[in-house]
Amino acid sequence: TQNYRITLLPGDGIGPEIMTVAVEVLKVVGKQFDLAFEFQEALIGGAAIDATGEPLPAATLDTCRNSDAVLLAAIGGYKWDSLPSNLRPEAGLLGLRAGLELFANLRPAQILPQLIDASTLKREVVEGVDIMVVRELTGGIYFGKPKGIFATDTGEKRGVNTMVYTESEIDRIGKVAFEAARKRKGKLCSVDKANVLEVSQLWRDRITKLSEEYPDVELSHLYVDNAAMQLVRAPKQFDTIVTGNLFGDILSDAAAMLTGSIGMLPSASLGASGPGVFEPVHGSAPDIAGQDKANPLAQVLSAAMMLRYGLDQPKAADRIEQAVLQVLEQGDRTGDIISEGKNLLGCRAMGHALIQAL
Amino acid sequence: TQNYRITLLPGDGIGPEIMTVAVEVLKVVGKQFDLAFEFQEALIGGAAIDATGEPLPAATLDTCRNSDAVLLAAIGGYKWDSLPSNLRPEAGLLGLRAGLELFANLRPAQILPQLIDASTLKREVVEGVDIMVVRELTGGIYFGKPKGIFATDTGEKRGVNTMVYTESEIDRIGKVAFEAARKRKGKLCSVDKANVLEVSQLWRDRITKLSEEYPDVELSHLYVDNAAMQLVRAPKQFDTIVTGNLFGDILSDAAAMLTGSIGMLPSASLGASGPGVFEPVHGSAPDIAGQDKANPLAQVLSAAMMLRYGLDQPKAADRIEQAVLQVLEQGDRTGDIISEGKNLLGCRAMGHALIQAL
Ligand SMILES: CC(C)[C@H](C(=O)O)[C@@H](O)C(=O)O
Ligand SMILES: CC(C)[C@H](C(=O)O)[C@@H](O)C(=O)O
Repeated sequence: TQNYRITLLPGDGIGPEIMTVAVEVLKVVGKQFDLAFEFQEALIGGAAIDATGEPLPAATLDTCRNSDAVLLAAIGGYKWDSLPSNLRPEAGLLGLRAGLELFANLRPAQILPQLIDASTLKREVVEGVDIMVVRELTGGIYFGKPKGIFATDTGEKRGVNTMVYTESEIDRIGKVAFEAARKRKGKLCSVDKANVLEVSQLWRDRITKLSEEYPDVELSHLYVDNAAMQLVRAPKQFDTIVTGNLFGDILSDAAAMLTGSIGMLPSASLGASGPGVFEPVHGSAPDIAGQDKANPLAQVLSAAMMLRYGLDQPKAADRIEQAVLQVLEQGDRTGDIISEGKNLLGCRAMGHALIQAL
Repeated sequence: TQNYRITLLPGDGIGPEIMTVAVEVLKVVGKQFDLAFEFQEALIGGAAIDATGEPLPAATLDTCRNSDAVLLAAIGGYKWDSLPSNLRPEAGLLGLRAGLELFANLRPAQILPQLIDASTLKREVVEGVDIMVVRELTGGIYFGKPKGIFATDTGEKRGVNTMVYTESEIDRIGKVAFEAARKRKGKLCSVDKANVLEVSQLWRDRITKLSEEYPDVELSHLYVDNAAMQLVRAPKQFDTIVTGNLFGDILSDAAAMLTGSIGMLPSASLGASGPGVFEPVHGSAPDIAGQDKANPLAQVLSAAMMLRYGLDQPKAADRIEQAVLQVLEQGDRTGDIISEGKNLLGCRAMGHALIQAL
């Protein structure tokens, strides 16, 4: 038996309900593959603010550090929106990324044939789309200094943030991206704004240099405005995309929305060593929280990513992904992905369907 | 007779051919509305680099300053891509924006019923889409300091750019946007990243404050990642969008691509006083330059925007816009927007069709 200590961060809104389903699925798969999971739950986001006054209590970070992987659900909600920004749920998420040095964020956007009609794009444009966005997650304008709101000589205020990348930061994310592209279709598109930003010029230079070590990967470059356009125009041209923190935030969401069903999309955030964090791309959906309406599949697929990228158990990951495809194949749908002639299930019932499929 | 001095900046690639068409159209409309245009041509971009070594010669800026409006075609091309960034065609464009203090960039993205099938999105998703992106153009990370590539203590390089906005910069673009929204459907969506960036928090505060002066305009806020998503998911929800320089660059291109025909889209860049610059959204398309294949309609519609926003001649602008709709209605198309059963025209022939329609 292989033992794993998993930290669960259910967070806010629909977080707890979808987490429950993912844990059930993990338990079943654990038995099948002889994996013993020890789950420990910790507070983050709004739930942590309510309980402790802080979005990321030190105890949570400790618990995460002492585990093999972290499964996160979702954070945030209207309730905490008026707090000062360093005390808001989002600060907990940014603190977790920084605290665990999760510099590489993998965000797949894949069209599932069963859900292709959910896309707002024409079938022939999105059929077969399978994009992996590799986003730098602990640098760039999210963390650069100076930052803040300062008074100027004339008495007016001035807001400032700084986009910074060092060569080593670019190299380490670049390596992750080239390795990912190599395991996929061997195409990597690096996105920057090198025609305007110096930080992007350094980015482009380093990625180009790095490509010498990956002669088997075909590298291209796009400016971020053009990349946003090309995602809408012809998304099939993309295989793997690598970009900085802010551009990755924007483009991974645009890419996700091409699928029409962000309730289906997982993500992985990885560091050089130590536990990774695995979480759905969607938010905490406070409007449907506690109503057994949420789609747990992105959370379940995040658990699969955890098995694949965090615990090196690709077979168990495959099993979960197959179960998800199977329930879709048999017509089971939550409200966000329902279409005519399909079976409408709640969150719990979808969980049961998955267990059956396993 | 009303006299106008117009600076023409044909630039690179297809620039000169599409400019020729726009000038012919302006001449005809000028006669019809008793407007006398004095055209003066000047160098910018690659053409200026080849002739003078600089992308924006001082003489060009002078000529522009001494005119009532500037009509720009397109700049850039592979030929100049390897030059240092301060000597590249783009630097000429940025210099022009800064030199004329063109802080407000208006980028309409409108679905024309005749071209709706060119969109990669489903008809029902884009039918009736009519979005105006108001992008701040002389501030933000495009111009903020410090910027550059610096050596660190450890000997590695560090790329830096700074995103900065002052209250007065936010207020002046905000006013333009609220005024624009008021003339449209009365809805303004401000886009920022206030959950992460302090500069965005200041942005959001000022725009919210400003909205008190525009009780008739309905203001909403979106984070930039969500805005990119919503443009793909449900573009009809948008009327007017206001945002900073970088986010505006990305979102206006994504919005433009929803139409499927960026060869049709004009833009206006305006300052507090002095001449505005009017230019198509598309690039210089060096691959088809000089082959009489380019679509001149965005350039012609830019001339219409010049009449409307730069010279306060809305009737002449209407006339041009109607002529464009008419040629589309009669089935005339350039190669970029051709579809089955339509008449394929070259750039010049499209110009003649427009003159006929006028
Ligand atoms: C919630 C927010 C801070 C976060 C980000 O901007 O990174 C989110 O948008 C994401 O993409 O995970
Ligand atoms: C060419 C480039 C500098 C420019 C920009 O980024 O502003 C272009 O993309 C645009 O949107 O006009």
